[in-house]
Amino acid sequence: MSDVSQSVSQSVSQPEQYVVGVDFGTLSGRAVVVRVSDGAELGTAVHDYAHAVIEDRLPRELAGSDRPLPPDWALQVPDDYREVLRTAVPAAVAAAGISPDAVIGIATDFTACTMVPTLADGTPLCELEQYAGRPHAYVKLWKHHAAQGQADRINVLADERGEGWLPRYGGLISSEWEFAKGLQLFEEDRELYDAMERWVEAADWIVWQLCGRYVRNACTAGYKGILQAGRYPSPEFLEELAPGFAGFVPDKLDQEIGRLGEVAGALTAQAAAWTGLPEGIAVAVGNVDAHVTAPAAQAVGAGQMVAIMGTSTCHVMNADVLREVPGMCGVVDGGIVEGSWGYEAGQSGVGDIFGWFTKTSVPAAYAEAAAAAGESLHEHLTRLCAGQAVGEHGLVALDWHSGNRSVLVDHELSGLVVGLTLATRPEDVYRALLEATAFGTRVIVETFRDAGVPVEELVIAGGLMRNPLLMQIYADVTRLPLSIIDSEQGPALGSAIHAAVAAGAYPDVPTAAKAMGKVRTAVYVPDEARAQTYDQLYAEYLELHDHFGRHTRTMRRLKAIRRAALAAAAEREA
Amino acid sequence: MSDVSQSVSQSVSQPEQYVVGVDFGTLSGRAVVVRVSDGAELGTAVHDYAHAVIEDRLPRELAGSDRPLPPDWALQVPDDYREVLRTAVPAAVAAAGISPDAVIGIATDFTACTMVPTLADGTPLCELEQYAGRPHAYVKLWKHHAAQGQADRINVLADERGEGWLPRYGGLISSEWEFAKGLQLFEEDRELYDAMERWVEAADWIVWQLCGRYVRNACTAGYKGILQAGRYPSPEFLEELAPGFAGFVPDKLDQEIGRLGEVAGALTAQAAAWTGLPEGIAVAVGNVDAHVTAPAAQAVGAGQMVAIMGTSTCHVMNADVLREVPGMCGVVDGGIVEGSWGYEAGQSGVGDIFGWFTKTSVPAAYAEAAAAAGESLHEHLTRLCAGQAVGEHGLVALDWHSGNRSVLVDHELSGLVVGLTLATRPEDVYRALLEATAFGTRVIVETFRDAGVPVEELVIAGGLMRNPLLMQIYADVTRLPLSIIDSEQGPALGSAIHAAVAAGAYPDVPTAAKAMGKVRTAVYVPDEARAQTYDQLYAEYLELHDHFGRHTRTMRRLKAIRRAALAAAAEREA
Repeated sequence: MSDVSQSVSQSVSQPEQYVVGVDFGTLSGRAVVVRVSDGAELGTAVHDYAHAVIEDRLPRELAGSDRPLPPDWALQVPDDYREVLRTAVPAAVAAAGISPDAVIGIATDFTACTMVPTLADGTPLCELEQYAGRPHAYVKLWKHHAAQGQADRINVLADERGEGWLPRYGGLISSEWEFAKGLQLFEEDRELYDAMERWVEAADWIVWQLCGRYVRNACTAGYKGILQAGRYPSPEFLEELAPGFAGFVPDKLDQEIGRLGEVAGALTAQAAAWTGLPEGIAVAVGNVDAHVTAPAAQAVGAGQMVAIMGTSTCHVMNADVLREVPGMCGVVDGGIVEGSWGYEAGQSGVGDIFGWFTKTSVPAAYAEAAAAAGESLHEHLTRLCAGQAVGEHGLVALDWHSGNRSVLVDHELSGLVVGLTLATRPEDVYRALLEATAFGTRVIVETFRDAGVPVEELVIAGGLMRNPLLMQIYADVTRLPLSIIDSEQGPALGSAIHAAVAAGAYPDVPTAAKAMGKVRTAVYVPDEARAQTYDQLYAEYLELHDHFGRHTRTMRRLKAIRRAALAAAAEREA
Repeated sequence: MSDVSQSVSQSVSQPEQYVVGVDFGTLSGRAVVVRVSDGAELGTAVHDYAHAVIEDRLPRELAGSDRPLPPDWALQVPDDYREVLRTAVPAAVAAAGISPDAVIGIATDFTACTMVPTLADGTPLCELEQYAGRPHAYVKLWKHHAAQGQADRINVLADERGEGWLPRYGGLISSEWEFAKGLQLFEEDRELYDAMERWVEAADWIVWQLCGRYVRNACTAGYKGILQAGRYPSPEFLEELAPGFAGFVPDKLDQEIGRLGEVAGALTAQAAAWTGLPEGIAVAVGNVDAHVTAPAAQAVGAGQMVAIMGTSTCHVMNADVLREVPGMCGVVDGGIVEGSWGYEAGQSGVGDIFGWFTKTSVPAAYAEAAAAAGESLHEHLTRLCAGQAVGEHGLVALDWHSGNRSVLVDHELSGLVVGLTLATRPEDVYRALLEATAFGTRVIVETFRDAGVPVEELVIAGGLMRNPLLMQIYADVTRLPLSIIDSEQGPALGSAIHAAVAAGAYPDVPTAAKAMGKVRTAVYVPDEARAQTYDQLYAEYLELHDHFGRHTRTMRRLKAIRRAALAAAAEREA
């Protein structure tokens, strides 16, 4: 069944085939129906998670109480994901105006590392009445950052023992990942840990829900699960880390690995009933939002760094070489596409920071002016600061409001703004925050380059690609040409590409990407004059980056003081 | 005429006498009518300056054009000050319900260092048609911070030459003061400098307007004019500083000195017409808002540090000993009251920073909630953060949005907030800014203590004394008891005290202060538990203080980049 796209173009009378891609984001799931022959996106639907992100307290209607969560927690409710299958998928098919019978496969992508504690049959522990009141029974979303202490200990011990896997993760494991989050559960709710039979990436859990088989995808297993060359961290390492934790891998984690683009199983009768799709069609191995986007943007070659810019930014890039890049998220064989070394890096907060700023830090007069002009606050602030000369606002910010994922890998870091004066206006700080995230990207690009993995092009996907000022700032700050994915729903399109491959419509992902992916190249190119001034500001950013990220522990101490204050206040309350 | 207060209390039938104090602030002038016998404040009136503070461009109706000013300028219009005499003084007398004929004296206090360039007869240069379009012809307000380059050169040269006066100013002259501002005028508009016959403190200019005599008050001459033991910086020093500048002192600055509380002259017919007060009554020597407040709060003893907390904070304290306190504003013999060494320190931005924050950084929902609760935004934010445990917000800020007056003496410094997360709320940042100013005060208190001038008590005056949370934070952060002036108009009351002394109703300022001043002692006392957590946060503040204030030039470079960007943009525009 090779060369389908060619046969389709030659024979227009052949009935069209379709695939469904479903992208599970931080706040919603989006389904898209895509034509196999050319990637045309024919219908789409979005469903917002009813419980969104749980950060302050468990929902009383589920948990029976609403006791507050400690700082830095971020939970989700797994049935919110199923609801996307029940609502968004049929809605997308209806919007596409196609017959469900013409759909030959479905694939999904997910935020990661997002972890579901389950029984052996996949039932999430929070769906059991006896555990519904326990915070650790819920899904730990990628941005649950309360396991930094565990991550720190993993890093120190791995470094001391010279664990061979550590350099594959830039020398530092993130608190966001499977082992840190699992160790937090082990240490903070041992009874629940013992009751848990599987510790499952949501990316695989949703596939399990669709096809009834638990297959662990190579991508998250490698990037988030420390699986390298078929081996996890050893029982000896885990026992030394925490007595009793030695069995974590065989007891909770280990599972058959599925390669990206492979079929995981066939759609079950129940999942067919949820989605309205034909029972038995191909369900692809799970995948991650960022990673599926690379083929959606036809960016699977060496030197093409794909930046998926939304709430946070994920950077993925293929290379033929294996290099150890300090502070990268990881390098995984076949982690993005089979046959290449897939590199990943990331910025924990990007759109999140801009959103936080517009929500918390912009006065009424601006909201009124934006409304009068028919603009969102983002558009309004962007317009106000777009005409500024580089450096005019006199500010530099550190974009660590949600911690730093690369290259410092430290979620105890926090945001900073310096240069504030009584003349500083909201649009000044807004622009400084846009720039801070661009500087953060430049740190990553330069770190890759210095480690022997050069970046030649930035390929942008994600919602933030719609801000031309932001895009131009990235081009000027990084001195790289920016290409833009030509789809509003890159991850869902990328999933659809994987569905097409899993269904056998294409021989492999790169071939499918060529037929179905979409990109506009070099839409933004650097301006040398602006780039030179940005060099000066970047030097200031770097100095702050190294001072607060490497040389002092100010930010860590502030978080410790905050935790102690909150704990003492909670104790007084109790 | 000594011991008037006693004779008054013994003989109630003796007709009451009154004095008028006029306080010239940053945005308005306030007149108060005070009973000489006991300091009762009987009537008050405020007049807002029509042109407020000119920071962006000269007013077209005065200057004939509105070309933009460079960054960091702050100008005023001298006739706005006369208008206070014409409106607020008669209004206060009317409000008091007294006969103007019972007023025996008038005294004024002013912001400092605020400089008026004039002809020999006191006419401000900006009132001459040929100079009205030139920025340097206007009043340079205390917070005009564009002469930092000149201040830097003065400091370097004075240090190199070992000038004996330098340690009297903590080792650093401020860009706010007479010589730095004068040198800026000399270098940037030489023609205007040559036309200028007197370089006059507004504190003395307003007295000149009242009594027709130019007397230079000992306070600003000492603190802002570098007059020590009767001598100014030498012509040799000034010539080395800038060729041609040697004559600055005799040609522009030098003038008969008047001691505080002395009479400068008699109210002229014209000023009597303006104010409605009797011609010929005593007009006291000029003075400064902060310095007159010490007697108003009965705080003229050693160890009593008076903090006048408003837009900025001024600290004044008397001592019997002469010590060199690093980074203080200055020590002047008789600078606060005759016979004591008067010490001054300051924080360039305090209420200004809180005001800037509420104006620029608080979203509509807060404004609506405040309005619904009948609160100002300040009150609303204060209420929201008042219940927080110390350290709960996880933030530390540097309160340098308007530069640092003590102990770093550097107006190229800027504000900083660290510890920001996506959970940070406006009330968190607001509280961090309140605390930052308290930490700034603690730096000053500790610097005085370490130099052998111990502080035993903080006596608070100024508008910010009305915020109980802020007051308690200051007590907890400094571990000092806080007394509160028992008057809503401390400086004007202080001026009235000086008017009473100038009119001969009391033999000296301390005696008048005892009869007319008002204070509530130890209204706020430190809480040891909170103080201990503040010690931790203060350690973080100090580390940031020293890093950005002493060890790196990040903030200076950011301002330089900003200036270059603005200059290049202006060039492109032209």
